[in-house]
Amino acid sequence: MPATRETPPRVGRPRAQGPSASELTPRAEVLAASAELFTVNGYAATTTRAVAERAGLRQASLYHYFTGKEDILATLLESTVEPSLAFALGVLADTGHSAGARLWALAAFDAELLFGGLYNLGALYQLPEVRGERFAEFRRSRGELKAVYGTLLTALDASGDPALRTDLLLGLVEGGVAVARETGGREPRTVGEAVADSALRLAGCAAREIAAARAEAARLRTA
Amino acid sequence: MPATRETPPRVGRPRAQGPSASELTPRAEVLAASAELFTVNGYAATTTRAVAERAGLRQASLYHYFTGKEDILATLLESTVEPSLAFALGVLADTGHSAGARLWALAAFDAELLFGGLYNLGALYQLPEVRGERFAEFRRSRGELKAVYGTLLTALDASGDPALRTDLLLGLVEGGVAVARETGGREPRTVGEAVADSALRLAGCAAREIAAARAEAARLRTA
Repeated sequence: MPATRETPPRVGRPRAQGPSASELTPRAEVLAASAELFTVNGYAATTTRAVAERAGLRQASLYHYFTGKEDILATLLESTVEPSLAFALGVLADTGHSAGARLWALAAFDAELLFGGLYNLGALYQLPEVRGERFAEFRRSRGELKAVYGTLLTALDASGDPALRTDLLLGLVEGGVAVARETGGREPRTVGEAVADSALRLAGCAAREIAAARAEAARLRTA
Repeated sequence: MPATRETPPRVGRPRAQGPSASELTPRAEVLAASAELFTVNGYAATTTRAVAERAGLRQASLYHYFTGKEDILATLLESTVEPSLAFALGVLADTGHSAGARLWALAAFDAELLFGGLYNLGALYQLPEVRGERFAEFRRSRGELKAVYGTLLTALDASGDPALRTDLLLGLVEGGVAVARETGGREPRTVGEAVADSALRLAGCAAREIAAARAEAARLRTA
């Protein structure tokens, strides 16, 4: 994931001739530059040449780390899902805690991760390019993450059409973060907690149950 | 909004020489072709030449209706918001009905409109181009729509941070429809009703209140 860089690296400086002005590895520089250019200028409008320049690398060096633009985008999208999937599989296995606490903790973690990124990578999920073969891993991870949401949601409320409500829950997390990003000055933690409270409301929990789940989730997160 | 066309119009056929193979006006043909190409191939990757060919018009004819690609995209995005905004202003003024019924009816209408479109135009909301001047009208309409959601939500539950919860509610509608579209075979009406039920859960309503709001909203929609 991209980190703030105070001093932009000079263009075309070969990595071998000196230490980086930032603390990022060249590979991470490429990802940070791509995240910025893909979200600010657009994916189709960004060339690997522009990415290399922004990252302070030669274009040939970029191809040492990635096979091309698609490979970079897939890596960025995977980075938005895989930490949440790992967390989700952890809470799924943690049957010593209630479904409510586990859903609260997962939604808070996932929304905080999505909101906390320097750039809105979630906006890239719906690019037509993401239907391609290189994105199969990203789509599979996001599908697995959705399945964990579905298991926890259904444990709380199995009425109606659980598959459709699971889609709406994932939409609340992803879409809610996207809209919340449009207003500045918010803390990732605040947004994560608000999304988690809303996720439990969506699962049909009453205020008292949400307060209990929230308190239990705090213990679960520090465990 | 795009309509289904059974016979694609021939390329380059000048409109003046005969009736259209479809029942769309040339302007609507341009919008339908653009909606398809922007969502399937991507906005940046689509040229006005490709749009004109797909619409069965000469490129010069396209410029009779639109000043360019940005003008077409803005028109498409406005078409996804303006019917919902008109509906929203109607329910906002309709103080003879409960806030719950009005929020239910608005969320159902808005989600059904977004879900029912032939192409997923909501995926284009987050393009970097949409920050530009030509999209001020779209952004203003979407902001007004969000404000109506906020007024109704706050009437039901003013606790916590209503501005953030309003963002999450809009995110639920837009993001929920986006995720629900990824699974085929669903009816717009079904998705609209599920989103509306979820919107009321987000607003803190209990099952009994939601059932009442739903019944009242049915009367409101046919009034």
